[in-house]
Amino acid sequence: MTDLLAPLAAIVGAANLLTTPHDIAPFITDYRGRYHGSPLAVALPASSDEVAALVRFCAAHRIAIVPQGGNTSTCGAATPDGSGRQLVIALRRLNRIRAVDAANQTITVEAGCTLAAVQAAAASAGLLFPLSLASEGSCQIGGNLSTNAGGLAVLRFGTMRELTLGLEVVLPDGQLLDALTALRKDTSGLDVKQLFIGAEGQLGLITAATLKLFPQPTAHATALLGVASADEAIATLNALQAAFGDRLTSFEMMSEVCQQLVAKYQPGALPFQAPWALLVELSDSGDNTSLQERLLQWLAARGLGDGVLAQNDSERTRLWQLREQMSELQKRDGPSIKHDIGVPTSAIPAFLDACGTALQAAFPGVRIVAFGHAGDGNLHYNISHTRPGNAGLFADEDAVNAIVYEQVHRLRGTLAAEHGVGQLKGHWLQRYKDPAALAVMRAVKQALDPQRIMNPGKWL
Amino acid sequence: MTDLLAPLAAIVGAANLLTTPHDIAPFITDYRGRYHGSPLAVALPASSDEVAALVRFCAAHRIAIVPQGGNTSTCGAATPDGSGRQLVIALRRLNRIRAVDAANQTITVEAGCTLAAVQAAAASAGLLFPLSLASEGSCQIGGNLSTNAGGLAVLRFGTMRELTLGLEVVLPDGQLLDALTALRKDTSGLDVKQLFIGAEGQLGLITAATLKLFPQPTAHATALLGVASADEAIATLNALQAAFGDRLTSFEMMSEVCQQLVAKYQPGALPFQAPWALLVELSDSGDNTSLQERLLQWLAARGLGDGVLAQNDSERTRLWQLREQMSELQKRDGPSIKHDIGVPTSAIPAFLDACGTALQAAFPGVRIVAFGHAGDGNLHYNISHTRPGNAGLFADEDAVNAIVYEQVHRLRGTLAAEHGVGQLKGHWLQRYKDPAALAVMRAVKQALDPQRIMNPGKWL
Repeated sequence: MTDLLAPLAAIVGAANLLTTPHDIAPFITDYRGRYHGSPLAVALPASSDEVAALVRFCAAHRIAIVPQGGNTSTCGAATPDGSGRQLVIALRRLNRIRAVDAANQTITVEAGCTLAAVQAAAASAGLLFPLSLASEGSCQIGGNLSTNAGGLAVLRFGTMRELTLGLEVVLPDGQLLDALTALRKDTSGLDVKQLFIGAEGQLGLITAATLKLFPQPTAHATALLGVASADEAIATLNALQAAFGDRLTSFEMMSEVCQQLVAKYQPGALPFQAPWALLVELSDSGDNTSLQERLLQWLAARGLGDGVLAQNDSERTRLWQLREQMSELQKRDGPSIKHDIGVPTSAIPAFLDACGTALQAAFPGVRIVAFGHAGDGNLHYNISHTRPGNAGLFADEDAVNAIVYEQVHRLRGTLAAEHGVGQLKGHWLQRYKDPAALAVMRAVKQALDPQRIMNPGKWL
Repeated sequence: MTDLLAPLAAIVGAANLLTTPHDIAPFITDYRGRYHGSPLAVALPASSDEVAALVRFCAAHRIAIVPQGGNTSTCGAATPDGSGRQLVIALRRLNRIRAVDAANQTITVEAGCTLAAVQAAAASAGLLFPLSLASEGSCQIGGNLSTNAGGLAVLRFGTMRELTLGLEVVLPDGQLLDALTALRKDTSGLDVKQLFIGAEGQLGLITAATLKLFPQPTAHATALLGVASADEAIATLNALQAAFGDRLTSFEMMSEVCQQLVAKYQPGALPFQAPWALLVELSDSGDNTSLQERLLQWLAARGLGDGVLAQNDSERTRLWQLREQMSELQKRDGPSIKHDIGVPTSAIPAFLDACGTALQAAFPGVRIVAFGHAGDGNLHYNISHTRPGNAGLFADEDAVNAIVYEQVHRLRGTLAAEHGVGQLKGHWLQRYKDPAALAVMRAVKQALDPQRIMNPGKWL
């Protein structure tokens, strides 16, 4: 394969074609450490033209390509296989903010920009880019697009797909597709950009995007509430939506087991303990300084007076930390089998009830850590202690997954709400996705990438 | 071809396979009367299974299918050709509301439901389905989906694509694709439903959809304002967005020529005349009765005190009628060459300036009627009087279109913002769309409909 390296180096410059074990180390293991690859090399192109030249060369020589952003996939979507024959194309040098159009409320950025850099560029123009998630300092826009990322403000602003107006993509034959429009309405032909959003790099390589911006919120109201049941949580969600409309920006749930984890590692951090804790945030732009007062009155009227309303930014930050540290606290408490499931919000109580019962029946004493973006129907539902002392947990992984995904399927839910499929869930996708939908996916893959060079070995 | 009729009649029942000139008349001419077809027959299936059986039969016998909703396409997208060999499948009997899930804020409806019926079903559940457009009493959800309809509230709620969570589709081989989920987040594989939205029935036949609902607005504030220029109009748009966030639901512009048409046919109806009239509507849910007062104060502070603020529902209706009757008034004033263009909102002033100058240079005395959904960058830009007395207008159609679409293209706009392409604009699409985007569209068409039986003779 070494005769392939010189022409690749000629495209990106020798310094930007990484081949030594030391240089490629950051690119070959996934974020969770579950997948390890051995690539031909790692290329770091700095322009869309360089990406197109790399892909043309790979297409001509049938070299498989693994696109990689910030390498924060939780499903191994951006990790090469062990063959030593795949080229990782990492986008970190393709990281310019190309344009901000404040009057059109749009920003055009290259795929290698971190999410935080895009948020900052929007803020510099007095506007908001609302996508927000735990890895925003290192994840990249190209990866956010390729997994259709969700995060903390989907309830109000939508997922990455809904935040995207235009894309620039290098197709599997090396053609540069220019769909980089900044239009909110466009019915001129198929909306081809939709194909590449959420495709995890298997249909083409996204090089740039034009994204929606919004007025900066000028008011926030953040509260932590305790409720007695999942039913009451969903009733509270609906009542908040009726009362505050789309000002309701985040609605997160944390089970009692989650709260016990906080109590164990940070005694006193939680102001109360309840069957479910809800983290609720309203935001508003324009002149609305009374948002906190309105939320307070609403909570009092509903008899949710034992909740905590953040009085200032530092209290707001502290409430959010309780939610955001859940993954970390769990990790400290030992391994778990993780799920990223979604069901209709109305079906959350039924899911929790049925799935909890089924798991307890199969694994008496099992521990279920359930939390997440309940306002979007999306729960992180993590399982441990299938056996005493949490020993041999991963031997039960398939059995646990079968129970969880069966319940999700029964409620017409999804086994991958916001993290994608990657290498982790391909076989479950084959099992539970509608056969006609799978046939369409395969037909599209065959049509656009007949040589199957774009991120092979994942789920398409 | 008559030997094909008996098996088709066996699928839908003889009474629902229309063949006589009288029976098929409502289905063979488009809304604007520009296209006239002569189909094999018109089938009226009542279930998704009947649709699938029709498509399977057509696939086996290579009969082309023209899906039709309310037959309100302005581009001839749902009109059969003159060959006598195409089967129109009209969805009007497939019109059940399958489910309303108020807690999940979703509704599942069949493709033949009128838009008004869906709005009404949502309202019965105390919720809003926000898509709203002139033909809502007769257009059908399947057509709204197939053209990715826009209308009057896109600024706040998005187009039909953004309002859609799930689809049920009969594929060109007759398979029923079940992507009828009610999930706001789903990254389990390609989002295949996106392919069929805006495809104008060329990739499959949509039979049902699950759509987003929203809290009913409880407050409206509607105003008609005059501004001195398009620049001032866009500055007003941006200032309204900053002040009121996404409460800004509609932002419509009408040129002075539009206002002159109103003055001609309805003297006294307009309270003022200005270079541009803006129709602005805010809406809000929950407890916000002071919305009108806030808008009034905002207008006064910006020196827009000569505007008219609707004081009650009947005044609100009257202001909207001024905008909604524009198409009708124009028609009374003679024929025009119509456009449905979109540019970034920031580029609207440059478009109006450059395109107006170019048209006046080519056709001295030309009349330009410009109005529309400026908040989305979408203008209806209609041309008449290219020659004295408006004689021989359509002889100039190609020349006029070339000027308009060239300016749109220069500003990275679209020649079809919300009406689709149909039979009317296919050749312009070929000319102005990115070649790689066209190649992807053709590859997808070939992959899903290799026999080319789905709505052939349109643009794919």
